Amino acid sequence: MSQSALSYEQLRQREPLVLRQSIAAGQYHGHTSGLGQGRVQANIVILPGDWANEFLRYCTLNRQACPVLDVTEPGDPFFRHLGAAIDIRHEVPRYRVYRHGELSEEPLDIEHLWRDDLVAFALGCSFSFEQPLLDAGIRLRHIDLGRNVAMYRTHIDTRPTARLSGKMVVSMRPMKAADAIQAIRITGRMPNVHGAPVHIGDPSLIGIHALDVPDYGDAVPVEADELPVFWACGVTPQSVVQASRPPLCITHAPGCMLVTDLWNRDV
Amino acid sequence: MSQSALSYEQLRQREPLVLRQSIAAGQYHGHTSGLGQGRVQANIVILPGDWANEFLRYCTLNRQACPVLDVTEPGDPFFRHLGAAIDIRHEVPRYRVYRHGELSEEPLDIEHLWRDDLVAFALGCSFSFEQPLLDAGIRLRHIDLGRNVAMYRTHIDTRPTARLSGKMVVSMRPMKAADAIQAIRITGRMPNVHGAPVHIGDPSLIGIHALDVPDYGDAVPVEADELPVFWACGVTPQSVVQASRPPLCITHAPGCMLVTDLWNRDV
Repeated sequence: MSQSALSYEQLRQREPLVLRQSIAAGQYHGHTSGLGQGRVQANIVILPGDWANEFLRYCTLNRQACPVLDVTEPGDPFFRHLGAAIDIRHEVPRYRVYRHGELSEEPLDIEHLWRDDLVAFALGCSFSFEQPLLDAGIRLRHIDLGRNVAMYRTHIDTRPTARLSGKMVVSMRPMKAADAIQAIRITGRMPNVHGAPVHIGDPSLIGIHALDVPDYGDAVPVEADELPVFWACGVTPQSVVQASRPPLCITHAPGCMLVTDLWNRDV
Repeated sequence: MSQSALSYEQLRQREPLVLRQSIAAGQYHGHTSGLGQGRVQANIVILPGDWANEFLRYCTLNRQACPVLDVTEPGDPFFRHLGAAIDIRHEVPRYRVYRHGELSEEPLDIEHLWRDDLVAFALGCSFSFEQPLLDAGIRLRHIDLGRNVAMYRTHIDTRPTARLSGKMVVSMRPMKAADAIQAIRITGRMPNVHGAPVHIGDPSLIGIHALDVPDYGDAVPVEADELPVFWACGVTPQSVVQASRPPLCITHAPGCMLVTDLWNRDV
């Protein structure tokens, strides 16, 4: 299916549906940041049978870190509630396959891996609330610096199921107090994309001891007149699933998200 | 276990934990409206194995009508995230047992029915948002009249899974415009107990053709200077499950809810 490759710049102009068609046609395998014209981008987790059932219980109990936007029926490779039907076997630019918790391959398509017992989950992502923050005039330093957001493992326990448990991972954005207050109000209205912050201020109170050494992403400086603001992060479910070592788990590759047809204002 | 019976008036003074202990001891089998000192009351649905897994997918796709507050692990009879651990076999005043969609019994306890593959769901309920509306000075006519709320089957399709599908059921409260606007703002902040209304005004636009003939509950008059305001209703998942005729389904008896330790302001 691979046709001539398209550049990131060519894809920026495309509507989500056309963008996904290009990805499904094998024309693009890169990151999706800034693509899709402001639509919701989703984290993807695909699990077999009973692991999928348990993962959905885990997400239900830990909604702030694991907001489920859509879930497929077992064996059905189509998301049906993210806009036009989306074939999860083809419409993500790049996937990661984990076997018993170990990364085993990074395919561009997962048709050959699809099985009758697989269930796909689309989880909300903090990209969705960054645009409304920017629209409100709040500067986001990691964007200004062209870096990934800083993410940390906390000492906050998530609610466990039989096999899935672990600490919450958070993302951090430094803000002046007035912006932090606005950001809390804005994101509090978006419970499907992590909602209000889980903490603000002293990082040690949630088990973070070195803000300049994030566990994931890039370090982002916090100025003296700023507060670090912490949101539950979609890395949480992925790290919890990997730690529990299911026989098979497929995710999107970092930064290579599923671009949906949903508007950020609707989630 | 049945000890001397307690009256509704005796129970009104009791904290939720003590109230549930009285219920578990077989001292009370009546309705819970007004009990529990303002804590969250939950709808209960209990299903076996694969039906439970599918029901959780259905609830995830239809969160406004089916907000899951807690879900147990298969075979575990305890809710662990509604405050103190709650034994779902004993702590509801009265249960209903449906076999293949037909009501078969109304036991006061379900210890004898418990199985290793049962999963219990606690679903949010509109009682939780009625108190904040009353606190804001909004009169609720069904309460003033001592009636149940009026509920209607609409023509709004819920999102289906393989075996679970059906129309949304809504509850209706008549309000003047200013109160309706306030009520939309207040309930919009409570997504775990149905959230903002699904409709306001002309009932025929959502397939309701006789406001004075509700499908469930009691008729409540709407005055000429009022709008009917419609919220997604927890009867939706129960009616959908019954229609799909699972081999076994256990629910609370109408009005005999699970009283949790959660505060309404926290859901």
